Order: sequence, then structure tokens, then C-alpha cells
Amino acid sequence: MVGNDVERLIRLLSKLPGLGPRSARRAALHMIQKRETVMEPLAEALSATAAAVRICATCGNIDTSDPCAICVDPRRDRSVICVVEGVGDLWALERANAFRGRYHVLGGVLSALDGVTPEDLNLESLMVRAMAPEVSEIILATNATVDGQTTAHYLTDRLTDSGVSITRLARGLPVGGELDYLDDGTLLTALSSRKPI
Amino acid sequence: MVGNDVERLIRLLSKLPGLGPRSARRAALHMIQKRETVMEPLAEALSATAAAVRICATCGNIDTSDPCAICVDPRRDRSVICVVEGVGDLWALERANAFRGRYHVLGGVLSALDGVTPEDLNLESLMVRAMAPEVSEIILATNATVDGQTTAHYLTDRLTDSGVSITRLARGLPVGGELDYLDDGTLLTALSSRKPI
Repeated sequence: MVGNDVERLIRLLSKLPGLGPRSARRAALHMIQKRETVMEPLAEALSATAAAVRICATCGNIDTSDPCAICVDPRRDRSVICVVEGVGDLWALERANAFRGRYHVLGGVLSALDGVTPEDLNLESLMVRAMAPEVSEIILATNATVDGQTTAHYLTDRLTDSGVSITRLARGLPVGGELDYLDDGTLLTALSSRKPI
Repeated sequence: MVGNDVERLIRLLSKLPGLGPRSARRAALHMIQKRETVMEPLAEALSATAAAVRICATCGNIDTSDPCAICVDPRRDRSVICVVEGVGDLWALERANAFRGRYHVLGGVLSALDGVTPEDLNLESLMVRAMAPEVSEIILATNATVDGQTTAHYLTDRLTDSGVSITRLARGLPVGGELDYLDDGTLLTALSSRKPI
């Protein structure tokens, strides 16, 4: 019905997370109808990004330079390393302006079901970084899921001899959370970790 | 936090229909992590499509040639023109293999609220096409919405002198539709348009 170019574009778009065949068609149509303001800039941005992105060999972050801007930033606290599962988690913490140290991106979590073993993760370089004299704390910021916690336990075991203090993110009510809508596990944790006012 | 290229890519992606800022970030991250299999082919497909697409001067369809493949296809019935609001509607009918005539894309619907007047639509060329001796029927396949039906009424008025027969799509239960979940309007229409078995 339409040229092969359009068919191929729809097929590629439909493979992106969050887009199915129907929304991919809608997105393609939108782009074609706004060729100069949407489609051409997007094509250009994709090519430029594909050419520019690098994986930071130190922390596993994605940036246009290696080492990444965070690893080389002299204003960053070099004594703390925050370990995250993926680059998306790093972005989330950076958006929140929550952390002024440096990061380490694991590139996944241990998972018996999915067959992910320690060798599949960016772990050995974390062990090396933990040995550096300037590092005094490692924050395990894996997700509060079963696999995320399994990975945190494994890392705690491996890092225990390095002499750095190992911490994890607090558990409790999310900001704005209503008790009525929260799960039992969160309520139990929030209650047992209660703090004096 | 990341290079300007990535920021710009996320901003452009977030403007696509169906993608917000969060899903745009997720899509960008996915593409960056699958640079060779997703990002580079997509950049290439976008450039190729942007360079190739044309608007058919006859019917308003989008294709890589002008006139479009449907307008020049000799196997298409030249006596019937199906009028649709947008190219997405044309694609839907083509996917359903529902129609073997030719199309006319209005590029919108009349809307008092949005200030869309007949001059804003691809109407005059439809009047010219309706006058062609080979055309005997015009199907008004605008949406079953208020604006779609207003547009169909307006077109019926305008086309009445051309001598072609003017039809519209049937109303009733959608295939697979359950009475319990359908709106009153559909049920009323389905009942009043009932047919002998």
C-alpha cells in the first residue's frame, strides 16, 4: 500500500519499547506529515547520536566521551560510588539531583530464571574500583525487586573484604504515597523502619 | 548528564504521538544500547523515507511516487472513489483489503470548534474528480463522529449536482462486539437498521 521505505520504517519503530504496530504506524504517519519539522531533525539526531555515543570504560555510563562527564567531573565526590542496574537508573538519580558522587552501572541483575550470572555483569571493574584508596562508601542502588536484592546481597558478600562501608537505599512510603494504595511489603517495611520525629 | 545529542534525540522522540518524556527516554536508551541493530537502521530508514515520500496530487495519499501507486493501478476500479479523512484511514481500509476502488484523502474534517473550514480541506479536487465520466459512486467513509458526519453532510450537499450516487459506510455492531459493552447510539442504530436473515 505504501512504499517499502515506509513499511520498513514502521517495522523498525514498532520494535521500540512502548510502541506496538499500531502506534508505530501512527508515529510514522505523523513524521511523514511533518517531514521538515519532525522527521528530518529526528533522522539527523539519530545519526549524530549513533556516531557520538560511547560506553564509559570506568563506570559503564553512556556518554559522548570515554571516560564519561561524570567520571571526570572534579566537583564529584570521588569517595562514594553508587551502583545501579542500568543507565536508566543513573539518569533517574541525576534528574533528581540526588547524588554528587560517581556511579557504577552493572548492566543488569543476577537472575537464575534468565540465566544471568556474575560473569554477565560489569562486576570485576567494580571490585577494582572498590580497592582504590579514595573510595570509602559504596551505595547499592539496585531495584527493590527480588533480583535486585539478590544482586545486592551478592555484591555485599564480594565487597566485604574491600574495607569500604556498604549501604543501600532506604525503604518506606514513597513521597505522596497513600497507605490505602500501598502493598503490604512496603507498609511492613515502613512500619518496622519507623523513625522518631 | 548526557551529551547534547542524546538530549535532543529524547526531546524529538517525546514529540511523537504515543510517546511522552518517560517513554522517549526509554526508547532512546534502548536504541543507544542496540546501536547497530536498531539505531543505525532507524536513522537510515528515516532519511530514506523523508527523501522518498510524496503527496499524491490526485488523491492526497502518501507514497513514494506522484500519482500514487493506487491511483495508477489499472486493476483498481475507477468508477468508485472512497473519501476518507486521513491517510491513516486509507491505510486501515487497505490493510483490511476492503476496497478495490480509488481514494480521496480530505486531510481533516470540518470543525467549528477547531476553525476548520471547507477551504482547509482537499475538497475542490474531489469536485473535479466527481465530474469525470468514469466515476459513478462516491463512498463517504468519514469517521462516525460528529465532525465526520458534519463533513459527510456537507459533501453530500456539494456533490448532489454531480449526478454520482453517494453512499456511506454501514452502522451497527462491530464484529466481535458484545451488546453489554456497546453504547446506546450503536445499539439504537443497529436495531433500527436491522436486516432480514
